[in-house]
Amino acid sequence: MNRFVLLFLLLSPLLSVAQQDAQAEDAFFIRKIYDEALTRSRCYDWLNFLARRIGGRLAGSPQSAAAVEYTRRVLDSLELDSVWLQPCMVPYWVRGEKEQVRIVNSRKMGTVELNALALGNSVGTGPLGITAEVVEVKNLNQVDSLGEALRGKIVFFNGPMDPTQLHTFSAYGKAAGQRVWGASRASRYGARGVIVRSLTTRLDDIPHTGSTVYEEGATPIPAFAISTLDAELLSRLLEEEPARVFMRNTSQNLGEVPSYNVIGEIRGSEHPEEIILVGGHLDSWDVGTGAHDDGAGCVHAMEILHLAKMMGYRPKRTIRCVLFMNEENGLRGARAYWKWSDDRGEYHMAAIESDRGGFTPRGFTVDGHEDVFNKKFRKAIEWLPFLEPYGLHFRKGGSGADISGLKSQKGLLFGFEPDSQRYFDYHHTPIDAADVVNKRELELGAAAIMSLVYLLDKYGL
Amino acid sequence: MNRFVLLFLLLSPLLSVAQQDAQAEDAFFIRKIYDEALTRSRCYDWLNFLARRIGGRLAGSPQSAAAVEYTRRVLDSLELDSVWLQPCMVPYWVRGEKEQVRIVNSRKMGTVELNALALGNSVGTGPLGITAEVVEVKNLNQVDSLGEALRGKIVFFNGPMDPTQLHTFSAYGKAAGQRVWGASRASRYGARGVIVRSLTTRLDDIPHTGSTVYEEGATPIPAFAISTLDAELLSRLLEEEPARVFMRNTSQNLGEVPSYNVIGEIRGSEHPEEIILVGGHLDSWDVGTGAHDDGAGCVHAMEILHLAKMMGYRPKRTIRCVLFMNEENGLRGARAYWKWSDDRGEYHMAAIESDRGGFTPRGFTVDGHEDVFNKKFRKAIEWLPFLEPYGLHFRKGGSGADISGLKSQKGLLFGFEPDSQRYFDYHHTPIDAADVVNKRELELGAAAIMSLVYLLDKYGL
Repeated sequence: MNRFVLLFLLLSPLLSVAQQDAQAEDAFFIRKIYDEALTRSRCYDWLNFLARRIGGRLAGSPQSAAAVEYTRRVLDSLELDSVWLQPCMVPYWVRGEKEQVRIVNSRKMGTVELNALALGNSVGTGPLGITAEVVEVKNLNQVDSLGEALRGKIVFFNGPMDPTQLHTFSAYGKAAGQRVWGASRASRYGARGVIVRSLTTRLDDIPHTGSTVYEEGATPIPAFAISTLDAELLSRLLEEEPARVFMRNTSQNLGEVPSYNVIGEIRGSEHPEEIILVGGHLDSWDVGTGAHDDGAGCVHAMEILHLAKMMGYRPKRTIRCVLFMNEENGLRGARAYWKWSDDRGEYHMAAIESDRGGFTPRGFTVDGHEDVFNKKFRKAIEWLPFLEPYGLHFRKGGSGADISGLKSQKGLLFGFEPDSQRYFDYHHTPIDAADVVNKRELELGAAAIMSLVYLLDKYGL
Repeated sequence: MNRFVLLFLLLSPLLSVAQQDAQAEDAFFIRKIYDEALTRSRCYDWLNFLARRIGGRLAGSPQSAAAVEYTRRVLDSLELDSVWLQPCMVPYWVRGEKEQVRIVNSRKMGTVELNALALGNSVGTGPLGITAEVVEVKNLNQVDSLGEALRGKIVFFNGPMDPTQLHTFSAYGKAAGQRVWGASRASRYGARGVIVRSLTTRLDDIPHTGSTVYEEGATPIPAFAISTLDAELLSRLLEEEPARVFMRNTSQNLGEVPSYNVIGEIRGSEHPEEIILVGGHLDSWDVGTGAHDDGAGCVHAMEILHLAKMMGYRPKRTIRCVLFMNEENGLRGARAYWKWSDDRGEYHMAAIESDRGGFTPRGFTVDGHEDVFNKKFRKAIEWLPFLEPYGLHFRKGGSGADISGLKSQKGLLFGFEPDSQRYFDYHHTPIDAADVVNKRELELGAAAIMSLVYLLDKYGL
């Protein structure tokens, strides 16, 4: 309690007795949140169910439907004011048979199988696969420079994530363009397919999938990720001799199918029209079991409602948990939610998304509409003395894909920000599984978000 | 660079041009340290050698000798001003055959094998083992209350680590007494042996060893740790019926054998008599391979010298890396070092120990002699603007066992403090191995320590 005592000594001379009492109440309530989260939370069990029992939950898949049903039942069990499913149409992409990517007939190496995954949304190569010469580029601009020289070729995007960025998401943001837009760009010049270096700073044998997007009008060509070690190997080979690669996948887009966002809420007792949203996304990639991305975020959001009920907390404002569908390859659940909410004239006073994994909390990135951001952010900053003892900070920055469309409602948008060092070890891979989520770290995340929700609810914005 | 810019805008009006230049130089040098550590450090490779090739390095063991030889050679390869081995005598304890601890003839459960490890320094049970009734206590004081009722019994210390402590080391500190002193205390009243609940907040099947200490004059009795799940099981059984346990180990103390601290230094160009020590301990428990405890600390300390050399940094003060022997079960290396240093009239202006694992850095705990602490701590706090952009903070608290005896030299003592949430998942177990150390997190630790060393060297205390 030494930090609290220090806090009061520092602040007390400036405050009235009533203000001092309120501060003490807040400090002790937040301590209580942490105690409860670290001893009686259920988020880790829920995560284990999502990851171990249900598994990878790509939108449209049977597993995604099972996840909708499971989380709805969990929310039902919490005795909330309402729980419902919100319909949306989602694309249903299937990976098909195990992918094959191999260097063929290299003078130096002979035939070398590469650790590969088709990128999400990728079209298939056809049953016979594709064999073509490989051309390495470091980024999208180099594609334009090479232009027609890429006709008939496989373009190999080998731009590494920058290891010197302290926030790994910054490095990811700078390198992800080649994965998202590489196929479309290469297709403009007649390339037959693309291979992308996996987005991680690690050197290992694990390929990382993730979505590729075909631009309107672009001829869709197959797209694969290979592991970073294989990217290094292929690049070294290309320094010595031309290389040909065989690639084969049978991925298919099966069109649109119905799915749902899962929503539960506790209605506010004084200002029910002011909504505080906590959310994550229920879908995940099909490889791995979506433990950090984004099982952790879903169980964080659910745990907020559980903690509130368990602690007998009656919010003044409405606390709504939203588990979004199809963040990974379409954002269709989020778009359905935004439209529905806007149509009803709702006001999200705040929205908090957890979609950066279940690691030890560091704080929140904060975003908002330019008309209101500075004023509201200044107000939020006043709460930092209650959060800093738990290692939590605010910094300006994007919040989360699923809540970004709520900016027009002019509330404040928060992205929960845990320690980011390990996230891209697991992101979109077969090893994003329950065993790499630490129970305490996950629980501390729920406590951090609940603490912010408490302050938002009590003081408003 | 936004944070740096902000920093300058805030501080600039108060400073002279020369001071502003110095600040810019410091900010950019520290950024350079991070760039180098995240791209060209060798600490992760060294850790892999220590953990995977050499393995568990208990003082006196062949592995500890191999670790002395390996690290000396690595330091030799760095072209330092001097590298040497400092002799010390250490106790040589051997675990012996695989331990057995089982509940026997329970009416409810029959025979149940428990996941157990002998505690370090424990005597053996003799070849036939011990079978006795179990009495559960929660702490050392309860032993005194029960007193003579413990004669002939096995005392089961089942005090859990408090999961609500945010700093897991605080919870460990409060619960570790039963492991260290439990055998001595129970022995006073004629107990035949002790079983201690493993020191972790996790509920799992992994037993955690660690040292037990026999007080002067106490009859040594065998001491074991059992996993937390087995502790819960045994405790539940004891609520229903008396339970008897069979325990057997063939551990032995083989007396004292010679060993070494491994030391390397770069001599200061202006104040060579002012020493900045960076250290970890080279020994580890025999189970597992001592990756976090304390391979990480050793390679951190070695990396400081490597970074300095690689960056062409010529320190004004002497930077000395000390890899201490026998921290785990005797502290004999540290004691030899303190005496040697005091006898030579040395002055450790600062000493930094890394012995809390290789996780993402949070800062440093700071300690020192009461005569000088406040003044020197105030000076160190002035450097925080350079460290906070990297998530580093100072807080008052113990530094590290190996450097604690240097307090009398009246420098400042720092304990490197990484995120502590996962440390006690692995501490003193078979799973403290290289695969649970993350390369980036380890490298960030080296960068954090080097940044502090740079400021200490440049500005003094």
